[in-house]
Amino acid sequence: MNENLKKLAAEKAVETLESGMIVGLGTGSTAYWAIKRIAERVWEGLDIKGVPSSERSEQFAAEWEIPLIGIEEIDRIDVTIDGADEIDPFLRLIKGGGGALLREKVLAANSDKLLIIADESKRVETLGRFPLPVEIVPFAVRLTLNRLRELGCTPTVRLDGDRPYWTDNGNFIADCQFGSIADPEWLAVQLNQIPGVVENGLFVRMASAAYIGRSDGTVEIIK
Amino acid sequence: MNENLKKLAAEKAVETLESGMIVGLGTGSTAYWAIKRIAERVWEGLDIKGVPSSERSEQFAAEWEIPLIGIEEIDRIDVTIDGADEIDPFLRLIKGGGGALLREKVLAANSDKLLIIADESKRVETLGRFPLPVEIVPFAVRLTLNRLRELGCTPTVRLDGDRPYWTDNGNFIADCQFGSIADPEWLAVQLNQIPGVVENGLFVRMASAAYIGRSDGTVEIIK
Repeated sequence: MNENLKKLAAEKAVETLESGMIVGLGTGSTAYWAIKRIAERVWEGLDIKGVPSSERSEQFAAEWEIPLIGIEEIDRIDVTIDGADEIDPFLRLIKGGGGALLREKVLAANSDKLLIIADESKRVETLGRFPLPVEIVPFAVRLTLNRLRELGCTPTVRLDGDRPYWTDNGNFIADCQFGSIADPEWLAVQLNQIPGVVENGLFVRMASAAYIGRSDGTVEIIK
Repeated sequence: MNENLKKLAAEKAVETLESGMIVGLGTGSTAYWAIKRIAERVWEGLDIKGVPSSERSEQFAAEWEIPLIGIEEIDRIDVTIDGADEIDPFLRLIKGGGGALLREKVLAANSDKLLIIADESKRVETLGRFPLPVEIVPFAVRLTLNRLRELGCTPTVRLDGDRPYWTDNGNFIADCQFGSIADPEWLAVQLNQIPGVVENGLFVRMASAAYIGRSDGTVEIIK
């Protein structure tokens, strides 16, 4: 059962937190377990401040009484704990299946450590089977999709019912089916050079470690 | 008088338009003269369709009865005519003083030709004396400004009265004082790799020609 493996990985990563830290709170079904475990540790006396990566995570954190600090009040995050949609052997990631890739990437880029938590199904040899989420502005969507296609993918605007899905930042998500991404570093740069692209879901040279919940009940740590 | 030089350059560039073209309409005080001249040519029989780069330009175009086509209905623009804040000898530009850099860049990137119009005061040997406009998301502004500073500039969030200026896309503008930009190509890539940066005002390898109105009453064309 995947939920158990996610929970296992999340709890292992949360063990590393220490009082005094500013902690980035990820978004998604695995990050949910981390936030829940952080809340338990806070009740037990852990003294941290959380920075949520989405309105949803903020709601969970507030409900469970994790002390929060505003993103405009800090210059640095100590540790961010977040999930991923794919993790390759070099700790390169695809993120953004949950739609919060931009804020997650801002947190990751400003964190001393990014700990990724996932069940073993997220480990891949090569990134790209999972459609890469790319946040795009709602202006000139047709032209932006054309440019994305030129990079070798089939892009689809993510829907919420029969209307486009809106991100927390008022943008759209194009889910880009690449199949296989040979050079994630290169692709990440190319995507961001397209006017109309706000950010992409490739996280390269960002993760410090990945905690992988395995079906045998252990947690593998990749560094 | 600069307005005359802008008008001179704009009218020279508009001469190149031909019936059947889809024409990108720039934003700002120089583009204003181009839109006005295009309207006159349309009244005289020129059969083009305009694509505005801002709500302001759309208003001018609609008022003067230039036929418009929606950005979501086209795959290509024939010619875009737009101003610039700085133009170097290699036709590299700083744009975005008017706040419309993202939409202007989308148009430029999807145009077969980008014609830049300006008075001679915009010509520089090295870009960077004009503060480089960078469009940023309103989330985590403090962290994004930190990252911009690391690239060697002094960034200031543009104000509209005592509140931040909002772009047509619901973002902020950071005006980044670099002083001198040694390598615009490199900087443009670095800026777009910062999560939180939507787009930057460096236009490199985009302009096909610049029409420069000079105080002797001539228009210099740089290709």
